[in-house]
Amino acid sequence: MTTTNRRIVLASRPTGAAREDNFRLETAPVPDLAEGQVLVRHHYLSLDPYMRGRMSDAKSYAPPQPLNEVMLGATVGEIVASKDPAFAVGDKVLGAGGWQEYAVVDVAAAGPWLRKLDASKIPLTAFLGAVGMPGVTAWYGLNEICAPKSGDTVAVTAASGAVGGIVGQLAKAKGCRVVGVAGGKEKCDFVTRELGFDVCIDYKSAPDAKTFGALLREAAPKGVDAYFENVGGMILDQMLMRMNAHGRIALCGMIAGYDGAPAPLTYPALILTQRLKVQGFIVSEHMSAWPKALGELGALVAAGALKYRETIADGLLSAPRAFLGLLKGENFGKQLVKLV
Amino acid sequence: MTTTNRRIVLASRPTGAAREDNFRLETAPVPDLAEGQVLVRHHYLSLDPYMRGRMSDAKSYAPPQPLNEVMLGATVGEIVASKDPAFAVGDKVLGAGGWQEYAVVDVAAAGPWLRKLDASKIPLTAFLGAVGMPGVTAWYGLNEICAPKSGDTVAVTAASGAVGGIVGQLAKAKGCRVVGVAGGKEKCDFVTRELGFDVCIDYKSAPDAKTFGALLREAAPKGVDAYFENVGGMILDQMLMRMNAHGRIALCGMIAGYDGAPAPLTYPALILTQRLKVQGFIVSEHMSAWPKALGELGALVAAGALKYRETIADGLLSAPRAFLGLLKGENFGKQLVKLV
Repeated sequence: MTTTNRRIVLASRPTGAAREDNFRLETAPVPDLAEGQVLVRHHYLSLDPYMRGRMSDAKSYAPPQPLNEVMLGATVGEIVASKDPAFAVGDKVLGAGGWQEYAVVDVAAAGPWLRKLDASKIPLTAFLGAVGMPGVTAWYGLNEICAPKSGDTVAVTAASGAVGGIVGQLAKAKGCRVVGVAGGKEKCDFVTRELGFDVCIDYKSAPDAKTFGALLREAAPKGVDAYFENVGGMILDQMLMRMNAHGRIALCGMIAGYDGAPAPLTYPALILTQRLKVQGFIVSEHMSAWPKALGELGALVAAGALKYRETIADGLLSAPRAFLGLLKGENFGKQLVKLV
Repeated sequence: MTTTNRRIVLASRPTGAAREDNFRLETAPVPDLAEGQVLVRHHYLSLDPYMRGRMSDAKSYAPPQPLNEVMLGATVGEIVASKDPAFAVGDKVLGAGGWQEYAVVDVAAAGPWLRKLDASKIPLTAFLGAVGMPGVTAWYGLNEICAPKSGDTVAVTAASGAVGGIVGQLAKAKGCRVVGVAGGKEKCDFVTRELGFDVCIDYKSAPDAKTFGALLREAAPKGVDAYFENVGGMILDQMLMRMNAHGRIALCGMIAGYDGAPAPLTYPALILTQRLKVQGFIVSEHMSAWPKALGELGALVAAGALKYRETIADGLLSAPRAFLGLLKGENFGKQLVKLV
């Protein structure tokens, strides 16, 4: 019996905001396995802001997502057929399976991108979030760039998100005052009540930069020592004006500019006058940090000491709309697509 | 006999560009020395871009220059009277004497800001330049932030200046390709022929950003790995667009914005996509680096291995005009005022 695979490909590159018609659904039979290959049935697909960057062909850290090929993305799933001795049917695996229901994976070529998971103490979806790339992103940017010490004020945007929520909780554990920024009262309540941030600014309640600046002054009366940036734009401007001398800014995402609108930095001279360090990073370039980070994050999640929220869209066909929603902040926590 | 001291004070804070009427000349008798004090007759006054920042009362790394008090500044001079056993008449000293002909210095209060100089192998003026604050600034920003390795392309603005010229020569000694940016053919010729940079872009020959960008592509065909920034504005924008992945930018000066015109950064997202480190620094906050830096720089100058140019204005009264010229790039190399 032939299995049918459904997949979503990049049909066209966005001009301006990404739209649903940039994607296309395709159906194709799953090919037979060759030696050294496995067939993975995906249970969950991860949707992440970085995917927006790859839809464009502008100069960036990664080559653009090819047109008419399956959208790239991390997946967790189960081995349903194997012609490789290292993997047995039933094994749970993390992979870079993309926006599709099945993937034929060449084990040797995949290397670290096909990894067996122990899901006995950690929920399978967490390997796409707190104990996966978003968690390591938070861990690396906070520890290696922000490097906060006890008593510092740490700020983070997209605070209810997969990365931001972890940043804040790790900073709290270090004895920092933690200021989150999120969109809407519901998210802000979650950030303070569930995640334990000291304060959360609802940027949607700030109609302009001046109002946001006033809220930030109130939230960070001693200024900001370390800032983990997921957003960019006006909020980055305001945060820069609030940075203390020798502050550190980890640039992880600038989603405000992803849809093509250029987002200039209004007062770059503050980097000089406040002697700041502003550093961009991509967690996949720091693979040596992953084992330590995943070890710590896994232990925290298994112990229930690290909280997170997930938004789970149902079925492959919901992926494009869920992804566009993610870019607008419509998700609440880690955005996933359930495929089984 | 009473000695008369002439000094220049800050009469008013600039609104927009600094002007000569922001300064005022005053004359006063030199007071008698108390125990532990010395009288220094200044031979040379250093004029530096940072002084413009202190004329304003905007938030910055240093408190503003007080109104109606002598303009701050580094000086080299000679002890002409001493009531402190550590200093004898005739000693050459470096001090923070300010824009005046004489200074009464309390030795204990001055600490490291009154330092005896050995001018036997190094010209006195060099202690205000290559073997002084500008030299250490170049050394620190290049070694500690830009951290270039052999084969890297290093760019520096104000390349004929007191800092930029040293940056480029130190980078050449490390085996880097060095790209300077300076204003005018004469300065550019000096930068390549005398200082040994590989290429120098005359920004005055570039009527717009696009032309400058094209010159930069030609000058740095493999991109820029490390950038030492003295200027800001359009040139920083263009340089950012030319940075290679994992590039380092040392923000030392942003003279383009000193006269009040805000100079936004057009594409800050490049810091993320190219994973750059952008770091502002003030050399006076890294005093532990000074002895090593001054040792290396002094040896190079004494050996004739480090070249520099000086522009020397004559007499205290010429200081305001010379300073305003410095802000416009009218000086050539280190700007000094000769007071004796």
